[in-house]
Amino acid sequence: MYFPTIDQRQIKDLVDGVHARTFWGENMLMAYVDLDANAIIPIHHHVHEQMGVVLQGKLQFTIADEVRDLQPGDIYIIPSGINHGVIVGPEPARVLDIFSPVREEYKY
Amino acid sequence: MYFPTIDQRQIKDLVDGVHARTFWGENMLMAYVDLDANAIIPIHHHVHEQMGVVLQGKLQFTIADEVRDLQPGDIYIIPSGINHGVIVGPEPARVLDIFSPVREEYKY
Repeated sequence: MYFPTIDQRQIKDLVDGVHARTFWGENMLMAYVDLDANAIIPIHHHVHEQMGVVLQGKLQFTIADEVRDLQPGDIYIIPSGINHGVIVGPEPARVLDIFSPVREEYKY
Repeated sequence: MYFPTIDQRQIKDLVDGVHARTFWGENMLMAYVDLDANAIIPIHHHVHEQMGVVLQGKLQFTIADEVRDLQPGDIYIIPSGINHGVIVGPEPARVLDIFSPVREEYKY
């Protein structure tokens, strides 16, 4: 339970081409997210605060009116209620997202 | 503010050989942590829930009575109040830690 084995988790598709494996505690839910090349997460928002880091690949990230090209090691912070979306580059990508409070709909 | 530039943050030394750059919102504090080769984070605990991922290097992680050798991409989940500590391998390492609630003493 302290050291989850990512490969043994069931995959949950968040949107087309975006595949998450999630883990959670009391205050936070972590999503290990694989994104297909050229996948798109449309602009959306939620009450949960979100922070993350790019683990692999390149993504164009939009938060509010800021647009950035991110690569491995880059981080992002999305306050509660702020619009954000992603366009994945020409290669698959992987990010680690953390939400607080726990996104109940991402449990499974 | 949505896309913090890690290299421009001031470095805060958490313990000897453990150098953090931190970012925070309302519910979470993220620590981008560089660890010197062979550095040791002694066993400790805190009320904050902690989750993280290894970005670079190898570390021996202890949480409660479980001991694991972690490498890049591996994740860990530390519930509130649970003892944990780290011994870094023979190369420098980097991890991303997220705490909730915000660890006020890690702000600066």
